[in-house]
Amino acid sequence: MRIDIVTVLPELLRSPFDASILKRAIDSGLVSVHLHNLRDYATNAYKQVDDYPFGGGAGMVLMAEPIDRCFSELTAQREYDEIIYMTPDGETLRQPAVNALSLKKNLLILCGHYKGVDQRIRDLWITREISIGDYVLSGGELGAAVLCDAIIRLLPGVLGDETSALTDTFQDNLLAPPIYTRPREFRGLSVPEVLTSGHSGKIEAWREEQAHLRTRERRPDLLDPGEDH
Amino acid sequence: MRIDIVTVLPELLRSPFDASILKRAIDSGLVSVHLHNLRDYATNAYKQVDDYPFGGGAGMVLMAEPIDRCFSELTAQREYDEIIYMTPDGETLRQPAVNALSLKKNLLILCGHYKGVDQRIRDLWITREISIGDYVLSGGELGAAVLCDAIIRLLPGVLGDETSALTDTFQDNLLAPPIYTRPREFRGLSVPEVLTSGHSGKIEAWREEQAHLRTRERRPDLLDPGEDH
Repeated sequence: MRIDIVTVLPELLRSPFDASILKRAIDSGLVSVHLHNLRDYATNAYKQVDDYPFGGGAGMVLMAEPIDRCFSELTAQREYDEIIYMTPDGETLRQPAVNALSLKKNLLILCGHYKGVDQRIRDLWITREISIGDYVLSGGELGAAVLCDAIIRLLPGVLGDETSALTDTFQDNLLAPPIYTRPREFRGLSVPEVLTSGHSGKIEAWREEQAHLRTRERRPDLLDPGEDH
Repeated sequence: MRIDIVTVLPELLRSPFDASILKRAIDSGLVSVHLHNLRDYATNAYKQVDDYPFGGGAGMVLMAEPIDRCFSELTAQREYDEIIYMTPDGETLRQPAVNALSLKKNLLILCGHYKGVDQRIRDLWITREISIGDYVLSGGELGAAVLCDAIIRLLPGVLGDETSALTDTFQDNLLAPPIYTRPREFRGLSVPEVLTSGHSGKIEAWREEQAHLRTRERRPDLLDPGEDH
């Protein structure tokens, strides 16, 4: 998989891609991530990439021309499965969309910044608009990092243990059950006996029951088939 | 405001706090962010912070003892308004919770990693569990960065233009209207005439209408008072 990210702040994205499983995935060639500084595509002498909004109001707007120039160059080199714009008014990201994106070959991601991007870029180029949640961030960079992390950890070979992602929260519409590790006793609290029983059938049954209990208590919406999840 | 973040991967969090508005906010003393490496609080000679789950299964679990030691040290020095655990089964973050957290003085954030944290830490220490969305990440670090970015940009003095955050998507349960900047004509698409009319009343009315249209089309749930948002 190849991911291209277009941003005014490539430096913000350095360390997330230089640590942990993202770094391992990149180092082992399972994915390549390319950061493009929008300023390198500025079309005027001042390297300008943002300007005041027509009609007035607070905040700056990312200009259409540098983005158009960057996208034209990238899409001339390869076909992208999706050109994604990270924006709070996009579709809310959920695990099934992450799963589907993890099967793509080339993704191009545009990070909004300031008040957002000139609407005409959305009209002309963007195939998909994604929000990571109902809150506002200072830019789309962290959203892009979140999206990439969620996708890349699903690529075959990235997680050490192949079965690990399948038991994640949301993969089966259930929250994960409580987990415990050593020591058995900690500040007066013991690990539930069943987990140290060695009885795998009982352990499985307990975990499933706990997962259902926790989901019903915290996220009944995940269990309700009438909801759009 | 002071934010302490406890993590096994402090290096992943360096660049998000070293760029853009987070850096400006930190440099100007409006917030201080302290990263704590969980390994520095390991209680055995191997600097071990994770271990296998009781009952078997894929993935590792963050051990209770190093976290307990770190939290004991930090809470002895100051009172925290919230001790937050970033986890996909926490309450789903939304803008009103961000607004409320931006009024706090001291926040302590624990980043999960691997399969999560020993349940007893959640039982003994955590006052609030937060998820940034219905998808799974390789760790809580990006979630913590997202939460901090959302909070810090609201602190008075952080955004250049004080009115900017108030017109954000979600602050009024409406998505933002389309925005445009120069040039007026771009690849055959013109800026809507009203925005260049200079008629501020008409511009305001157009923006409000567009915000409602977009919200109704993309996120009718935000307009429906029957939903829990």
